[in-house]
Amino acid sequence: MMGRHAGQNRLRSAVRALSESEADNRVCQRIAGRIACITSTIKGGKTMATRTGAAVWEGTLKEGKGTMKLGSGAFEGPYSFSSRFEEGKGTNPEELIGAAEAGCFSMALAFNLEKAGHPAKRVSTAATVKLEPGDGGFKITSIRLKTDADVPGSDEEKFREKAELTKKSCPVSVALAGTQINLDAKLL
Amino acid sequence: MMGRHAGQNRLRSAVRALSESEADNRVCQRIAGRIACITSTIKGGKTMATRTGAAVWEGTLKEGKGTMKLGSGAFEGPYSFSSRFEEGKGTNPEELIGAAEAGCFSMALAFNLEKAGHPAKRVSTAATVKLEPGDGGFKITSIRLKTDADVPGSDEEKFREKAELTKKSCPVSVALAGTQINLDAKLL
Repeated sequence: MMGRHAGQNRLRSAVRALSESEADNRVCQRIAGRIACITSTIKGGKTMATRTGAAVWEGTLKEGKGTMKLGSGAFEGPYSFSSRFEEGKGTNPEELIGAAEAGCFSMALAFNLEKAGHPAKRVSTAATVKLEPGDGGFKITSIRLKTDADVPGSDEEKFREKAELTKKSCPVSVALAGTQINLDAKLL
Repeated sequence: MMGRHAGQNRLRSAVRALSESEADNRVCQRIAGRIACITSTIKGGKTMATRTGAAVWEGTLKEGKGTMKLGSGAFEGPYSFSSRFEEGKGTNPEELIGAAEAGCFSMALAFNLEKAGHPAKRVSTAATVKLEPGDGGFKITSIRLKTDADVPGSDEEKFREKAELTKKSCPVSVALAGTQINLDAKLL
């Protein structure tokens, strides 16, 4: 195990050394006789993460079927016209967006509270995503975040300020600039 | 089973009747002696879908841990600082975004090709999501879509036109206006 650890450290050092500005997003090195690759890279001395998600759709809109999956392998599941626009069994892109936004927001709010001197015990967030028909077809018209946080020692005003800041600045919120994100934040 | 089917039809009719403009997003009715609820509603005579995703984060950024889950129950899984910014086991918001965009794009491209008279047998898309550090913290700087499609009878030009249109118009692409989406589309 020591050998593996040392190898990883050498790999990280090698990656750091590679990069003045930006390295490739897949870096492979021969470490302790084996080829090891990492997909994170360095930009400006910090890590960049490259993630993947994928999907396959077979057939027409109404009769066809699809599968979505996560690059980590954590999940792969079916979706359909019915699971997206009706009440059929399966997943849909909008609930993945909701989970991603809730996940980004919860982690970032915990970090912003920590930086303000009041680490949260727990931040719990539900995201409700609305997909509505409009002139140009269906649109994600809004995402409502409802968050409850257990933050020992924090006052209400500071908490709300950090929650609003997080809603605007978390990377997934910034990417989702084409929809309206609303926040209902509660300090427990 | 006939009774259940009839009940569902009555429920749908009731929901339709409810709405001149927009109904509540959760509608419950007593149908055949049971309370039945649907979360889709009608707006302008069409269905609106309301989906949820949720997350919990416990503790600090580096030592804490989280869980993200989908409202349908199709997936629930852990995430951490390491699974998001390093190479740790688990999921992260960015791969959920990638899967959502790939899922939306694949389904919508199939529909756009179908409307153009050349239904696709199969549309397969991978989305690569980059999370990079910048002045204001981490940002999702780009999403690269790589799609392969089996579309009997379609010519290359028409296919590329539909693929570009889909990249711009699919609901998840529209919501993700805060990042750059690039497309590499291949007709098999």
